[in-house]
Amino acid sequence: MKMSLDCVSCFVRQSLDAARLVTNDHADQERIVREVLRWLSEQGLEHSPPVLAQLVHRRLRQISQVGDPYLEVKARHNAMALELLPELRAQIAAAPDPLALATRLAIAGNVIDMGMKSMIAEDDVRESIRHALEEPFVGEWEDYRSAAASAKSILYLADNAGEIAFDRLLIEQLGADRVTVAVRGTPVLNDATRADAEAVGLHKITTVIDNGSDAPATLLHDCRPELQERFAAADMIIAKGQGNFESLSHRGHDVFFLFKVKCPVIAAHVDLPMGTQILRQYRI
Amino acid sequence: MKMSLDCVSCFVRQSLDAARLVTNDHADQERIVREVLRWLSEQGLEHSPPVLAQLVHRRLRQISQVGDPYLEVKARHNAMALELLPELRAQIAAAPDPLALATRLAIAGNVIDMGMKSMIAEDDVRESIRHALEEPFVGEWEDYRSAAASAKSILYLADNAGEIAFDRLLIEQLGADRVTVAVRGTPVLNDATRADAEAVGLHKITTVIDNGSDAPATLLHDCRPELQERFAAADMIIAKGQGNFESLSHRGHDVFFLFKVKCPVIAAHVDLPMGTQILRQYRI
Repeated sequence: MKMSLDCVSCFVRQSLDAARLVTNDHADQERIVREVLRWLSEQGLEHSPPVLAQLVHRRLRQISQVGDPYLEVKARHNAMALELLPELRAQIAAAPDPLALATRLAIAGNVIDMGMKSMIAEDDVRESIRHALEEPFVGEWEDYRSAAASAKSILYLADNAGEIAFDRLLIEQLGADRVTVAVRGTPVLNDATRADAEAVGLHKITTVIDNGSDAPATLLHDCRPELQERFAAADMIIAKGQGNFESLSHRGHDVFFLFKVKCPVIAAHVDLPMGTQILRQYRI
Repeated sequence: MKMSLDCVSCFVRQSLDAARLVTNDHADQERIVREVLRWLSEQGLEHSPPVLAQLVHRRLRQISQVGDPYLEVKARHNAMALELLPELRAQIAAAPDPLALATRLAIAGNVIDMGMKSMIAEDDVRESIRHALEEPFVGEWEDYRSAAASAKSILYLADNAGEIAFDRLLIEQLGADRVTVAVRGTPVLNDATRADAEAVGLHKITTVIDNGSDAPATLLHDCRPELQERFAAADMIIAKGQGNFESLSHRGHDVFFLFKVKCPVIAAHVDLPMGTQILRQYRI
């Protein structure tokens, strides 16, 4: 999908968030915001949102000279999510339909998205869990269940740190031995990298690959060949989050997108209200 | 109060709102946003929010070559509010405490603020009315009532178009003959000008002056002498909206600020949650 001019003010907000994460000095924060404003004024605005987001955050890392502004935030989100895991895992084990519950919880975890919100508190996550358990999905639940029943190989495109602990619950239900988890190749926003997959122990139960890219999305042409091959060969692909949706929704593959609608640009694109929980294939 | 770096992304959003109001051509909208980004990157960010907002919207009018981007929006908001007036006026007449109800409705009207939100629908206004009737004020109700009882002259600093119809209800209760209503001198955002005061008939019941300024606020040094004199001489001053609060809260006058907390920067400044209804004097 193409970016909207609405995305511009969101990138400015993200820049300030990142600036505040790398320095407490107001003058330095202001310098970073100013440089991003000038830089944004010169960029092509015809990209897809994740392509421009990739460039914005690359530029932010250059300006701030900090390779991973969100490092501490991601560690905090992983720890917060890991604390919830035993309780949630027990709920799944006792559920009449464990796959359904694990899928709902994986969507609940998608609230941990610093692209959308400057602060995520544990209350936000608990509220998202409550919402995920009560509200319906918009999508193709039966197709998803039957694809999950028959697939020999599943490629799971993760989204954010913290959220990836919730993904682990779903991967356990899918059967970790047939799942490959792909994470971002380089830190960008609070997106999950290999370090986050390892922080929640995914490397112990399944194959984790990094996609080689620093986009907060899955831009296939920008990913390492191994990711591209697994994408082409997988029987089933599950793609978490808005970024993966923005970058893959135009493709002719059977990708199950699993995300919460968290911004008005996406809401307009899918023609569904904010907050909608989506479990949907796009075979465009 | 000083602006926060958080205000920058909000100005970018306002620029896009204004761009969309003046042209349907995407390339023109993009050009306006780009020019504002570049211009913002060069501005002093140590001003108060209304000072920078004044400069942003002045610049927007220059770039777009449209003197009043919000003209149609303001007419729509006035019409929407005027339609509600007979019903609300009847409610006030039947109320046990008409001044209290009219004051609450004047705050409810403060939701019609394009500085905060890109779109205001009638549902937003009705929801705001419901909220205004049910939720408590934070502030000094008894001081306000006693000031209103004894004042010989009241200066009422209006805020937005649409909202000004709700102000009329309060001005009727205060006694229109002792009230002077001040509006902005030049169109800026969706702030009320003389045309909006006349659209809701205020000129027929009271004195309307324009403040001579194009700030979305009351920057006294920027206002015409008549406004400054009335400000100094008034027994009671009622200032509507966040912009008037931002520009006058540091002054040593007995100003009753009447507004809803609609942005996180103001919420942090007054140390109250978003949505709080404030009726408060600041004698700082």
